[in-house]
Amino acid sequence: MNGKTAHRVVIVGAGFGGLNAAESLARAPVGITVIDRKNHHTFQPLLYQVATAGLSPGEITAPIRSILSRHKNVEVLMAEVTGFDLEKRVVKAAEQEISYDSLIVAAGASHAYFGHDEWEALAPGLKTIEDALEIRRRVLLAFELAERRAFAGEGSDPLNFVVVGGGPTGVELAGTLAEICRHALAHDFRSIDPRRTHIHLIEGGQHVLPAYPEDLSRSALEQLQRLGVEVVTSALVTQIEPGVISMGARRMNAAVILWAAGVAASPLGQKLGAPVDRAGRVQVEADLSIPGHPEVFVIGDLAALKDESGKMLPGVAPVAILEGRFVAKLIRRRMELAGASAAERESAPRVAFHYFDKGSLATIGRAAAVAQFGKIHISGFMAWLAWLFVHILFLIGFRNRVLVFIQWAWSYFTYERGARLITGSTNLPGWSGLHSGTRGSEAEQEISAAVHK
Amino acid sequence: MNGKTAHRVVIVGAGFGGLNAAESLARAPVGITVIDRKNHHTFQPLLYQVATAGLSPGEITAPIRSILSRHKNVEVLMAEVTGFDLEKRVVKAAEQEISYDSLIVAAGASHAYFGHDEWEALAPGLKTIEDALEIRRRVLLAFELAERRAFAGEGSDPLNFVVVGGGPTGVELAGTLAEICRHALAHDFRSIDPRRTHIHLIEGGQHVLPAYPEDLSRSALEQLQRLGVEVVTSALVTQIEPGVISMGARRMNAAVILWAAGVAASPLGQKLGAPVDRAGRVQVEADLSIPGHPEVFVIGDLAALKDESGKMLPGVAPVAILEGRFVAKLIRRRMELAGASAAERESAPRVAFHYFDKGSLATIGRAAAVAQFGKIHISGFMAWLAWLFVHILFLIGFRNRVLVFIQWAWSYFTYERGARLITGSTNLPGWSGLHSGTRGSEAEQEISAAVHK
Repeated sequence: MNGKTAHRVVIVGAGFGGLNAAESLARAPVGITVIDRKNHHTFQPLLYQVATAGLSPGEITAPIRSILSRHKNVEVLMAEVTGFDLEKRVVKAAEQEISYDSLIVAAGASHAYFGHDEWEALAPGLKTIEDALEIRRRVLLAFELAERRAFAGEGSDPLNFVVVGGGPTGVELAGTLAEICRHALAHDFRSIDPRRTHIHLIEGGQHVLPAYPEDLSRSALEQLQRLGVEVVTSALVTQIEPGVISMGARRMNAAVILWAAGVAASPLGQKLGAPVDRAGRVQVEADLSIPGHPEVFVIGDLAALKDESGKMLPGVAPVAILEGRFVAKLIRRRMELAGASAAERESAPRVAFHYFDKGSLATIGRAAAVAQFGKIHISGFMAWLAWLFVHILFLIGFRNRVLVFIQWAWSYFTYERGARLITGSTNLPGWSGLHSGTRGSEAEQEISAAVHK
Repeated sequence: MNGKTAHRVVIVGAGFGGLNAAESLARAPVGITVIDRKNHHTFQPLLYQVATAGLSPGEITAPIRSILSRHKNVEVLMAEVTGFDLEKRVVKAAEQEISYDSLIVAAGASHAYFGHDEWEALAPGLKTIEDALEIRRRVLLAFELAERRAFAGEGSDPLNFVVVGGGPTGVELAGTLAEICRHALAHDFRSIDPRRTHIHLIEGGQHVLPAYPEDLSRSALEQLQRLGVEVVTSALVTQIEPGVISMGARRMNAAVILWAAGVAASPLGQKLGAPVDRAGRVQVEADLSIPGHPEVFVIGDLAALKDESGKMLPGVAPVAILEGRFVAKLIRRRMELAGASAAERESAPRVAFHYFDKGSLATIGRAAAVAQFGKIHISGFMAWLAWLFVHILFLIGFRNRVLVFIQWAWSYFTYERGARLITGSTNLPGWSGLHSGTRGSEAEQEISAAVHK
């Protein structure tokens, strides 16, 4: 199937950008190879729901193969891309060189710890299903360990949870954690009271949701406080140790620390040889190609592009989706210049990508959200309904939409969380069980250290 | 809450036996402590559905705490029990000694490798959610690696999958794997054809489902063969190496080997000091207590008890459920002799546990099953409907029932599998990714070794 006759498009990454590029190209006379290191697309906007036990991983993911299986000209390869040779026009992956005529790099971003990579083990971020499961495990284990400690008569001080970063992910995490403590977990423990748990949200800037208009930032703050979240602004994290987080002289015990503060683009961006910005994003041309290589495109969170007003396009799904479709159209248009040579096609008149911002939505908790559609700003229940509608609508797969809707309806009316499952290591301190993973056991020692402080 | 006033019942294990004992005792004037090393109850009869990507872990589990939260006299402790002191009447767990007046041990069973524990890493069994996710990962990864190999032009020989053990679990796994290859995965790959996959079911005895009447065993064999499963009977596994399984002189390459052959009772049985049988099951008295300790009961898969005809009661959920309720009733009755001393209560006239077998059901695949209700034997679609009805009905939690029903309806009409998610290690050979766990990377080397043979 590695058809040598047709124009071959290789797409690296099956996030929103890559998948939309593939779908838009699938009816063109091209052969497409989609390469991803995972076998599934993750609906990242709902990852925080997996981290907070509201949804199961299978409900916000879909196998890349099955999303694309109806397109016979699309081949999916589960492999980690290790580099490129732009002169030979090949992608290096799985000890192979995979040839392309057009290349779309949509490898996304991960979290950044601002030079403190050692914090990652102590304060996990939220970019993958594995991250979400690790966060879920830590949060639920912290309560189990606290209960055990209180059962043994060793005191029942309330737990501290700290979320670092007041952007949309941090706000979602903090808001949802606060709700869980006050509702879903409230009646399940006998020796501790989860309602007494402190949820701290630490933001370096002056406002939570700093990218939003100030009235919505303020509304988000109020909605968070109503949920019981203790918001600390203008505070920079200077140190993270097991069970302790420091902001300058201020030290805080924390059973669980979650990181939602920084974003770093995939290291693949730097392997393209094009200029990158401080976050590792590739500085693309107006048509999303890289300088000197009109056949190589970078889209989504990995691309750095400014809009007309000079503002950097945000790393959100709508931007990636539109960029994917734009690049697909560009390649299709070049293909239509069928008689022309490859060189002539690539030098066809350039068009620039324009992003039309339809609005932004951030959720805070049950029936709490903020939304901006142009000049219209909404908060609270109506914003939450809009958020719910948009997220269920765009979730991949009809089956997933139905399942997620049921889960939400169930959670909404019962306050229950359906996926409160601790999997992986059960190697708690004092247990004689198997040591089934270092990451797990380290986490437990940290949590245990924190809980026992 | 470790109330010293009320009669204290400690229940070890929150499987079918332990949960039913707790529920039946919850309205009695006792204090109950349920100890389990997991935070969730697992609906084991549907574990094979998680292993074969049909259901998500969250759909067949429920937090033990939330199942029991409405009973204020029940305390749940997530901890691994390490031993007992029957003279002091304490359970040792989490570096504590937990006192009891009555003890119910329902710690269940795991898989046994007949003295070949080194096979476990090569041929995982299916007893926990973690096992199911590991099997799912291996099966899906095998196809991804085969596709990658074929994409690179290194051949596309069909894969071999081997399931060891022709009991209900082995039959379910083999049948469902065969269906997945022929339907759910059939159109997702471009370089390999999953329909060509060989599924081998290896059984040591003469028949699959040996515990069933012969006509149903024969029907199960036919239904398996119709699904394309290659059944090998009277074959004993003598060796398992990475990617190769041997039955005497016969060697077979295998991309994935699954173990459904032996059962070993929890090692906690032996720590009770009572006689155990070869599988480690505790030989209990007729009232499920252990000799010399009328206040200590063993139930479920951990108990060895014969029925009137001298046949060992099978290790299935209905037996465990009825045993749990029986023991709860026994304790309640002893409580009613309120004025009497503890010694008098324990020596109250004994009643014996009787198991009334309502029937057995084993599923083989989509619309394929066998069922026995006394003298009535059914096969095929009707047996499958009965199986479906019983399993959805007994699934814990209304929400889970709805979700599982939707998943099944979806799978039935579309042949899709909703939870085809590879999580955990993505450390494939030739990848530069993180080494995120030894178990994962070993598995991949084995699979890779097998696929590249």
